[in-house]
Amino acid sequence: MYKIAVLGAGYMGSAITYPLTENGHKVNLWGTWLDDEILDSCKKGFHPKLKKALPGPVDLFYSDDLAEAVKDVDMVFIAVTSEGFVPVFKLLLDNIDKKEHYFYKLTKGLVESGGTIKRASQAAEELFAGKFPGRDLLWTTIGGPVKAVELSDKIPTASVYGVSNSKLWNLPFDFATDYYPVTITDDIIGVEVSSAFKNVFAIAVGLCDGIFKTSASEGMYHNFNAFVFNQAMIEMSGIVLAAGGRTETVFDLAGTGDFYVASLSGRNRRYGDFVGSGSDPLKAYKKMYKEGEVAEGYQALKIGFKWVNSLKDDFIDELPLLSSLHKIIFGGHAPLDELKEFVKKMKNRFQLSRR
Amino acid sequence: MYKIAVLGAGYMGSAITYPLTENGHKVNLWGTWLDDEILDSCKKGFHPKLKKALPGPVDLFYSDDLAEAVKDVDMVFIAVTSEGFVPVFKLLLDNIDKKEHYFYKLTKGLVESGGTIKRASQAAEELFAGKFPGRDLLWTTIGGPVKAVELSDKIPTASVYGVSNSKLWNLPFDFATDYYPVTITDDIIGVEVSSAFKNVFAIAVGLCDGIFKTSASEGMYHNFNAFVFNQAMIEMSGIVLAAGGRTETVFDLAGTGDFYVASLSGRNRRYGDFVGSGSDPLKAYKKMYKEGEVAEGYQALKIGFKWVNSLKDDFIDELPLLSSLHKIIFGGHAPLDELKEFVKKMKNRFQLSRR
Repeated sequence: MYKIAVLGAGYMGSAITYPLTENGHKVNLWGTWLDDEILDSCKKGFHPKLKKALPGPVDLFYSDDLAEAVKDVDMVFIAVTSEGFVPVFKLLLDNIDKKEHYFYKLTKGLVESGGTIKRASQAAEELFAGKFPGRDLLWTTIGGPVKAVELSDKIPTASVYGVSNSKLWNLPFDFATDYYPVTITDDIIGVEVSSAFKNVFAIAVGLCDGIFKTSASEGMYHNFNAFVFNQAMIEMSGIVLAAGGRTETVFDLAGTGDFYVASLSGRNRRYGDFVGSGSDPLKAYKKMYKEGEVAEGYQALKIGFKWVNSLKDDFIDELPLLSSLHKIIFGGHAPLDELKEFVKKMKNRFQLSRR
Repeated sequence: MYKIAVLGAGYMGSAITYPLTENGHKVNLWGTWLDDEILDSCKKGFHPKLKKALPGPVDLFYSDDLAEAVKDVDMVFIAVTSEGFVPVFKLLLDNIDKKEHYFYKLTKGLVESGGTIKRASQAAEELFAGKFPGRDLLWTTIGGPVKAVELSDKIPTASVYGVSNSKLWNLPFDFATDYYPVTITDDIIGVEVSSAFKNVFAIAVGLCDGIFKTSASEGMYHNFNAFVFNQAMIEMSGIVLAAGGRTETVFDLAGTGDFYVASLSGRNRRYGDFVGSGSDPLKAYKKMYKEGEVAEGYQALKIGFKWVNSLKDDFIDELPLLSSLHKIIFGGHAPLDELKEFVKKMKNRFQLSRR
């Protein structure tokens, strides 16, 4: 039995409390300054996003009670948004004592820290080293196809835990249940980069839906959708490889699985659908944001595009789908015209293998 | 410009005539003994499956005119069902002259030939060697996410051509159009085995749809669906590897792309959906068959299961999803119970990596 603090009372932080408490762990759920209303409602027995009560044993903590929430805990699960990750992690470091902690990151995406774009784990590592020089950061990044509501409904859900240190290897099995099997890898980069870019590429899948549902018969654009899905997987594996991860991680739960679930449904696919149907990319993002539905792929595309370009020279030339997507969302290019351009680029790339 | 005979006037044989004629090739479309009504309708300007006229320059040939249809042609595209493949290929060999021919296989799946189960290309190779000893078989297997109706509608569609011989390498580019980009590989086995098993595993995706739409809220089983999709990809790559192909082929258009499109829609997904919703597996297959909708994954599972077991000892132990699927379709196991069993098996497999 571990004492665990979960940071972030939104979808994912709240959902993970189900398998954690079922395994007999003691769980404190801390809400950020954006989560006050959620906690108010939880106190009355109803989580407004998960649409049900949290598990009985979960203790709730408001944003100003972080010190109390993390007091004496062995583990901290971080499940805030990617925008909130750096400020919350800094706050966390100010509030933990000298004891060794295990950190688990549920937050997805890249972050800006110290003026540059980096993986969230990288940012955490630097902040941790600054605060506790010489101490090992015991870090695990969680990925895989996990929609929070379904996890809380105990629909079978597989997850992959990427660990930074061999002493962390066996711990995630203590969070598994019959409906929540977990697997382990030491490729943190692969898990983390896949998680960030599946949100980005889910926008492209949504674009196809939006474009073709207004221009073709229902169900009549699946070839193209599959072409885009496949190319997204190829480009994701190229990005992971360039970042120092392994392609086998992409072609498994963290990549294939998570991207598939994001392509079936979710905010990023829906955002792409709006843009594909004719909405202005910025306006559509803001409209969803106002309604409390943040399409994280939008920001991930913005900063991910810059980050990818920093990985190697002319790398974007190897990423025709990402490039077209960026032109559509941030360059004013019309979705259908630009995707036709993408098909043309692909045709030419294929021709390069002519002998 | 080539003279091309296309065998099979169903969906795929008819659809490929669009990019072929657009490239200026001379195309003869031959219908099997099951295609008479289709040809009758085509003569009146309407293909009843594609719901439109065939391209103007296509010449039509009835089943008893095979000799005429293949006279003087350079290339033969074979697009009959997997059941029809061996008899039609034998008939073809009886009707071609001494000239060198290029063969292109659009038929998907494994076949039974000479009492054993094999890849269709293997069967063709043996039959060809028997008929024309010492002559090279110039063979190409076509794969990728290509639903025929969409191809005929010129929805962007990517395809991969697996060639047996380096002199075939550049030819497929002569079939490409702006909406039909093609790419080449020398991994015929990878293309062919992926094509066969995506039909099989699409049944599993359909099962999830069927089970959960009757037991959970709409859209509330995507985690599980993605878990199954991912595991299908992993098992498909294991099968391709054991058969002598390469995993890179699976994680590209022939595998990821084609399986994705089969999971979005199609007869195999729908068949799985029926079974997942409670229909008897055999009755559901027969009912669809009677309505002219053959779920090819059903037969592919039946013979593919035997074939997989012949590849290496105890191989099925490495394929928990395929094993559960076989138990559901041919072993009388209840879909939901057996899929829960699958999740349990996966949980135990994941635990094996405990150190």
